[in-house]
Amino acid sequence: MRVQILPVRVYLEDTDAQGVVYNASYLRFFERARTEWLRSNGIDHNALRETANILLVLSRIEARFKLPARLDDMLEVTAEVAELSAVRFVFKQAIRREPGGGALICQAQAEVACVDARTGRPRRLPAQLFSDLNGGGVEG
Amino acid sequence: MRVQILPVRVYLEDTDAQGVVYNASYLRFFERARTEWLRSNGIDHNALRETANILLVLSRIEARFKLPARLDDMLEVTAEVAELSAVRFVFKQAIRREPGGGALICQAQAEVACVDARTGRPRRLPAQLFSDLNGGGVEG
Amino acid sequence: MRVQILPVRVYLEDTDAQGVVYNASYLRFFERARTEWLRSNGIDHNALRETANILLVLSRIEARFKLPARLDDMLEVTAEVAELSAVRFVFKQAIRREPGGGALICQAQAEVACVDARTGRPRRLPAQLFSDLNGGGVEG
Amino acid sequence: MRVQILPVRVYLEDTDAQGVVYNASYLRFFERARTEWLRSNGIDHNALRETANILLVLSRIEARFKLPARLDDMLEVTAEVAELSAVRFVFKQAIRREPGGGALICQAQAEVACVDARTGRPRRLPAQLFSDLNGGGVEG
Repeated sequence: MRVQILPVRVYLEDTDAQGVVYNASYLRFFERARTEWLRSNGIDHNALRETANILLVLSRIEARFKLPARLDDMLEVTAEVAELSAVRFVFKQAIRREPGGGALICQAQAEVACVDARTGRPRRLPAQLFSDLNGGGVEG
Repeated sequence: MRVQILPVRVYLEDTDAQGVVYNASYLRFFERARTEWLRSNGIDHNALRETANILLVLSRIEARFKLPARLDDMLEVTAEVAELSAVRFVFKQAIRREPGGGALICQAQAEVACVDARTGRPRRLPAQLFSDLNGGGVEG
Repeated sequence: MRVQILPVRVYLEDTDAQGVVYNASYLRFFERARTEWLRSNGIDHNALRETANILLVLSRIEARFKLPARLDDMLEVTAEVAELSAVRFVFKQAIRREPGGGALICQAQAEVACVDARTGRPRRLPAQLFSDLNGGGVEG
Repeated sequence: MRVQILPVRVYLEDTDAQGVVYNASYLRFFERARTEWLRSNGIDHNALRETANILLVLSRIEARFKLPARLDDMLEVTAEVAELSAVRFVFKQAIRREPGGGALICQAQAEVACVDARTGRPRRLPAQLFSDLNGGGVEG
């Protein structure tokens, strides 16, 4: 499946008094890129909740912070799906400075679980959606 | 009505690359103090929504930033109700450094409206709650 | 002076458990648009600090929240300078849903002061910069 | 070394439109608890920067999100040091609902590196500080 690339500008809100981007801000950037990956693959948080009562929630993340990003930097945040099952997406993600292949700022592996909006328990993606994500055609 | 006082420690998350507390962080601190005022007056966001389908939402704020707060500062955030009607609270708020009357960091007037959770339109507080807030007894 | 227009997508990070955009998130959006206004007028937070030891800090804001924005909304955030002196910018700002003139979400007037990075006391903008901002030519 | 325990109240700012605490908010909570661990062990971000030109920065985190926390929850965030060298702290952390041993919300392992404030390269903690952290006397 394809790689989603999202340009992100660093604003004051993203930085901290150490003069660099605050660690939790990178998680916000990663989540923006995953959301755009989902959107470009036809998945909409609101619609999934309203039509199937399913939430997509982060269940695990491992992030390695390599170099600090700073105020006014233009970053490139990527998201691609490394593994997909009916109940879980595993995303590989990275943040680089300067779109087009600058220094690696941060890398992550993020696991997103499909859960029931009411109970929080694991749920399967709707079959048609799962099939579409797998590029499924006739047998979809 | 009494003044709610909430101690708040400044963490990295609250600061920005200018070395001071980021402006929107003060709004978060003000909201925490209003929530504690409401809680100590028997108002719970969740319960109000579930039992009366009412949300309390910020409809207007004016804030003046006097002096910067910095990483590790202990702040004292206050909230008191200056005006109250069945559809609106007007809070006067301040943030001082060092609990007990340190330098004034920031002042605000915040208007909180009661709205219908579904339509977003103005709603009246439940009569008993409004009466209780006014210190009302039998005649409510 | 011209109006800066910044498109902003609403992500989960911007919303709260009431199902709408959290109030302090709008202040982050307003600050992004002011930063882009400054950038497009040749003002860079980092450069101003390094070359002139000046910070631009929010000294006052008044914001009116008209309608809630929601997850996945595309917003248009504007910033224009209504008044300019050597020590202060007054910005008029708005947030609308759907770029191109959708419903008004929020309006604000934001005053940004020029202060000394070390003392926090008022400072004048560098003369050339102030002249450039005023479209200044000969008498600059 | 002892376990730092920090009570944290969940406010609207911490939640998202899925009705639960937003994932990056947990990283903010973890960082607050690490900061309090450091503070209670005599380490102050500001002082370390000013006296030794050292920053403590998150270099890696692995977090597992088990159960959602919600608006108004009282959480207990813990931080303890599992490994310590002169250039790195490894923290084990957890977030539970209801202080005193409620349901496990989230677990993390966080690695904090000592870096030079100017170059960002690894730096050793000051010898006396490292010795003190190890409970060290003469032989440190």
